[in-house]
Amino acid sequence: MTHTPVSEWNPEGLRVAADVILGRGVKLFGFVNLYGCEIGDETRIGCFVEIQNGVKVGARCKISSHTLICEGVTIEDGVFVGHGVMFVNDRWPRAMTQDGRVVKQGDWRCLTTLVKQGASIGSGSTILGGITIGANAMIGAGSVVTGDIAPGTTVVGNPARQLDHSNGSKL
Amino acid sequence: MTHTPVSEWNPEGLRVAADVILGRGVKLFGFVNLYGCEIGDETRIGCFVEIQNGVKVGARCKISSHTLICEGVTIEDGVFVGHGVMFVNDRWPRAMTQDGRVVKQGDWRCLTTLVKQGASIGSGSTILGGITIGANAMIGAGSVVTGDIAPGTTVVGNPARQLDHSNGSKL
Amino acid sequence: MTHTPVSEWNPEGLRVAADVILGRGVKLFGFVNLYGCEIGDETRIGCFVEIQNGVKVGARCKISSHTLICEGVTIEDGVFVGHGVMFVNDRWPRAMTQDGRVVKQGDWRCLTTLVKQGASIGSGSTILGGITIGANAMIGAGSVVTGDIAPGTTVVGNPARQLDHSNGSKL
Repeated sequence: MTHTPVSEWNPEGLRVAADVILGRGVKLFGFVNLYGCEIGDETRIGCFVEIQNGVKVGARCKISSHTLICEGVTIEDGVFVGHGVMFVNDRWPRAMTQDGRVVKQGDWRCLTTLVKQGASIGSGSTILGGITIGANAMIGAGSVVTGDIAPGTTVVGNPARQLDHSNGSKL
Repeated sequence: MTHTPVSEWNPEGLRVAADVILGRGVKLFGFVNLYGCEIGDETRIGCFVEIQNGVKVGARCKISSHTLICEGVTIEDGVFVGHGVMFVNDRWPRAMTQDGRVVKQGDWRCLTTLVKQGASIGSGSTILGGITIGANAMIGAGSVVTGDIAPGTTVVGNPARQLDHSNGSKL
Repeated sequence: MTHTPVSEWNPEGLRVAADVILGRGVKLFGFVNLYGCEIGDETRIGCFVEIQNGVKVGARCKISSHTLICEGVTIEDGVFVGHGVMFVNDRWPRAMTQDGRVVKQGDWRCLTTLVKQGASIGSGSTILGGITIGANAMIGAGSVVTGDIAPGTTVVGNPARQLDHSNGSKL
């Protein structure tokens, strides 16, 4: 992966921090907010996407518009992330401590999430922290994923459960 | 419908491609990404909205902030689309083909979705591809719509089911 | 709360109307659309956030990226609002009246919602209008909240129901 200087990008609507590492052939389409992250070769990132500090996105992924990839998330190669997908990294988020000050680094634990090669996460899904989504798994649109997903399986719903392909209902 | 030259719009925060057809009195509020689409007279489009190639939105619609209207979607007149609504056009989305190259046009089939006149889609809903939402139907906020919705009915939930107005539960 | 002139902010990607009242130490990170609202001291507001007319957000809150806070919402001090949270203020939203004109002020009733001190609203949640979320309540990620939430309780799901902490299921 090579580092493409931010200055090569059209500055209009792109907030790409100086510490972002963009692979060869990465495509950004405007209105993105990227900082402290690493994006693999040929990955495409839609509009209104934020990718936070420490995130690694593999090569040949598609990150669709309106998606948030938070600190703690690692995405392997060839992963599809739909529109409006929200990743989560805090089990019990709070804005303020019990004694009334703003929560800051060190007041909370960042959960880690791994999305394995070739997985597909449908639009409008919410992915809780601390889980692994297996290789080539498919998360149906609008799902809320609350635990590990086995490789190659399809899950849907809130909470997400395995889909019975014979009749389209949950197992 | 008349074509309003993009240069007439405040350029700040508006990405409106040259091929977009905007009707008379269309209102855009900033941070939008529109390309290859046609928007009817007096329709209002909120912030952080993306409308993709080939989409037609009718007259006097409201498309609220944070919404994604993807290729394959047609919206008739007078439709309300809430905030953060995600349309879907691919049943089995993948970013990478089995032999490891980036998925491109022709590798997948774009599903078509039709939202009929006067329908209302609540905020935070996800609308799967290949379906029809009937005239004046109402989709409750936060729903995941997985099949056709009959005209004039109200549906809620994940998956969306018809609402029993007598007690507020699903039928 | 003191009024910070908008001109003090980095204008890139910030749409902050002249009537917005920003408290001391408020942090904005870009691509926001704020108008007619009041934001308390030390509150942080992420990217791609819209906060509408008449909204009051307390001090030391965190409003995460991709969130919409609509007219009618009041948020007290120390509240956490996750990413991609959509508030709702209209029970039966329509874009067009029965006689075919655009819906305008006075054609609909704006519901009010109150989020009490220290509450936490998980990412990807949808919060219907006309409800109260009690102090220190916790809304799980991906929930659809359709009624009042008692102080200090944790709710999850669509519709959101109280979580049984003993086994992680809904009560």
